[in-house]
Amino acid sequence: MKNAVSNQPSHQVVIVGGGFGGLYAAKSLSSNNIQVTLIDKRNFHLFQPLLYQVATGTLSPADVSSPLRSVLSKRKNTKVLLGHVKNIDPEAQLVFMDGEEISYDTLIVATGAKHSYFGKDDWEKTAPGLKTVEDAIEMRRRIIMAFEAAEKETDLEKRRAWLTFVVVGGGPTGVELAGAITELAYHTMKEDFRNIDTSQTQVLLLEGLDRILPPFAPELSKEAEASLKRLGVTIQTNTLVTNIEDGIVTVKQDSQETKIAAKTVLWAAGVKASSLGKAIAECTNTECDRAGRVIVEPDLSVKGYPNIFVIGDLAHFAHQNGKPLPGVAPVAMQQGQYVASVIKQRMNGKTLPQFSYADRGSLAVIGQNAAVVDLGFIKFTGFVAWLFWLLVHIYFLIEFDNKLLVMLQWGWHYFTRSRRARLITGEELARTSEVDEKSNFYTPVNGESIAKLSS
Amino acid sequence: MKNAVSNQPSHQVVIVGGGFGGLYAAKSLSSNNIQVTLIDKRNFHLFQPLLYQVATGTLSPADVSSPLRSVLSKRKNTKVLLGHVKNIDPEAQLVFMDGEEISYDTLIVATGAKHSYFGKDDWEKTAPGLKTVEDAIEMRRRIIMAFEAAEKETDLEKRRAWLTFVVVGGGPTGVELAGAITELAYHTMKEDFRNIDTSQTQVLLLEGLDRILPPFAPELSKEAEASLKRLGVTIQTNTLVTNIEDGIVTVKQDSQETKIAAKTVLWAAGVKASSLGKAIAECTNTECDRAGRVIVEPDLSVKGYPNIFVIGDLAHFAHQNGKPLPGVAPVAMQQGQYVASVIKQRMNGKTLPQFSYADRGSLAVIGQNAAVVDLGFIKFTGFVAWLFWLLVHIYFLIEFDNKLLVMLQWGWHYFTRSRRARLITGEELARTSEVDEKSNFYTPVNGESIAKLSS
Repeated sequence: MKNAVSNQPSHQVVIVGGGFGGLYAAKSLSSNNIQVTLIDKRNFHLFQPLLYQVATGTLSPADVSSPLRSVLSKRKNTKVLLGHVKNIDPEAQLVFMDGEEISYDTLIVATGAKHSYFGKDDWEKTAPGLKTVEDAIEMRRRIIMAFEAAEKETDLEKRRAWLTFVVVGGGPTGVELAGAITELAYHTMKEDFRNIDTSQTQVLLLEGLDRILPPFAPELSKEAEASLKRLGVTIQTNTLVTNIEDGIVTVKQDSQETKIAAKTVLWAAGVKASSLGKAIAECTNTECDRAGRVIVEPDLSVKGYPNIFVIGDLAHFAHQNGKPLPGVAPVAMQQGQYVASVIKQRMNGKTLPQFSYADRGSLAVIGQNAAVVDLGFIKFTGFVAWLFWLLVHIYFLIEFDNKLLVMLQWGWHYFTRSRRARLITGEELARTSEVDEKSNFYTPVNGESIAKLSS
Repeated sequence: MKNAVSNQPSHQVVIVGGGFGGLYAAKSLSSNNIQVTLIDKRNFHLFQPLLYQVATGTLSPADVSSPLRSVLSKRKNTKVLLGHVKNIDPEAQLVFMDGEEISYDTLIVATGAKHSYFGKDDWEKTAPGLKTVEDAIEMRRRIIMAFEAAEKETDLEKRRAWLTFVVVGGGPTGVELAGAITELAYHTMKEDFRNIDTSQTQVLLLEGLDRILPPFAPELSKEAEASLKRLGVTIQTNTLVTNIEDGIVTVKQDSQETKIAAKTVLWAAGVKASSLGKAIAECTNTECDRAGRVIVEPDLSVKGYPNIFVIGDLAHFAHQNGKPLPGVAPVAMQQGQYVASVIKQRMNGKTLPQFSYADRGSLAVIGQNAAVVDLGFIKFTGFVAWLFWLLVHIYFLIEFDNKLLVMLQWGWHYFTRSRRARLITGEELARTSEVDEKSNFYTPVNGESIAKLSS
């Protein structure tokens, strides 16, 4: 019997991307005669919904990351490869990874999205986005460093610019960042400085549409605005950013332009699909939407290639109500599980009805004790919503140790308002304990040195 | 009364360095008429004895770091400055920090040590040392990446070189690193790979003297050797490293040279004092020892300058038994407290007897369940020593949240042998979720790409 099974060639599934979509597909593909290869360019799955907590000093990168190999170590039919896929050959059924060719019977592409500056790519230097662990550490460095620079600055106007934080984009990430920075300034660090009063910090949240959290119901947007204002965030809706340069953000509101002096600008405004989407669309002759997402068939496959699936943030799926599904974790997770089922059913000669997203609701956290939850049949805000947000996020953190420890850290943070991970680290700082060659101890932010400003 | 106190100019103490010496001095200098300024080029105190756990994926940087501002936030007489001190003027009583001048009545210099390659500075690229958080993350990246490279490598000899780890230096750090790498290979990751068997990993610990842990009693060195061998570490004593180049370590044993093919080489062999020591010796006309440490007076002051103290790893204090005190945390802590007392006593017109180090013993951890402890009056090894080591380190972790969480993580790690922080991160990896320009997803280790090796 055993021999018979092993003689039958097993079905090779290659998954590109270990985010929510790819990982849930891999976890759902346990079967004796399926061999799974998961390729990612990082060795860990990142729990992106909590990345803003790394950027604002509450959690460490390892708290929101799980090594892919350990998540999948018990699945003996699954192999993890660390590598970068740039293209595929849909006819030869090959994936090209760092000069190697990997063949597949079925391919699942789930490489997600990165932030987009709507063509103004030079804004990235001044206004970093939040997609990777490195992004989060860079944001953390800039936020903490801004307070240090303000503490040294004697010119009051310049000090104000260091204590002004602009968050571009009023979606969940922007709301979460803005809330967390005010907490950091008004509570966590309020005793820490001698020259500045951190309660003078200004946090501006800019949104192009007429309300923050546009995917939510209007009454929840209103509640969220009220909560953020109570925390101390200044919200400007109907506001477009027209220029970002070092120290100055130019915005347009009712066709009037204003300049905001702010040393720290954080980007939470737009995303575009990973470039593998475009490569796949080209070689399969499919279409992409304007954000670079591959327009998929009702079963999430690529038109004309039933053995290539595109899921998660990389897919444009509009078969439900005409609008593409949002780029959120639950969509990716459900699509990963659906595609795994399709593959298993096909091997049994069966088919599945088209993919259908079960929207269980949206939630966003505003700050300690406040969140907004929209479950469709019920909407709620405030402390209960915050507790609900907390439980949902803990539940979905994949590895048990992460869940336990993050929960304890949150509990600790909740009662003490401390933020343990307020470290300024990075390559810009010395590897060894001294830098003899450099005149300054850190790379100047945006080309302007703090020493120069304060002298 | 209040007015009388504030009219009296307060005594200005400047401390350079927020390590164990500087921080304990600052914490002991609470007094109404002392103003303390603590200068460090990092914004956090680093608990260096546990840094090897960051390098081997058990703890996160924030677990072994405490923001200096929060440690000192309750001390209203203490100011923290983020800056780099390169020199002082002992006559004008000035410290030069990034172009600024800061005046002092009393100066405490505690800038510690960095690793030393005995003049072979080009070995650093190939064999990184472990002094900073960035060093630890780089070591972690190299260790985890070596297993990934081995998994991809098909040439058996090259694969063996990826699975060979050489630790240079048999002091506590070397012993701790070697023990932790074997645990990582033989336990934590044993289910994680499909092509390699991580139990084939070779960990070599090289020591120039005739036994490892030379500061300990010989019987404890023997016990430690036995424990390490049980873990799977190969120990070579009386072994000098004569050359390190990419992939090959040349060693000399009994005047015979051997070449070891190893892709990962970690340096735990020597330290030299921070360069501020030399600068101070020059301008005060004092002497340094060969390691660059300032030779201090019996009260830890610099000869001829009773208001300048040098403490911790930067100081050469040989007034106790002719041998300079070792560069360990307890020495620095006691010296910081002693100098704070001297300053306070002097302000009352009193003097203190010379500094005397109370050696409460040495301890080193070998691996899970094993450590060696030498308290002078009692020596013990094994599980009890490991528990003792654990309690001592938790006790000294400065902030309470760190203590609690690190303890829980250790507890978790102890029962599961999991290591949560096995992330490959760093600037070398993409900030955004894609690298379109680069052909490979990470910067090749030591100029040689894994893709090249495996193709």
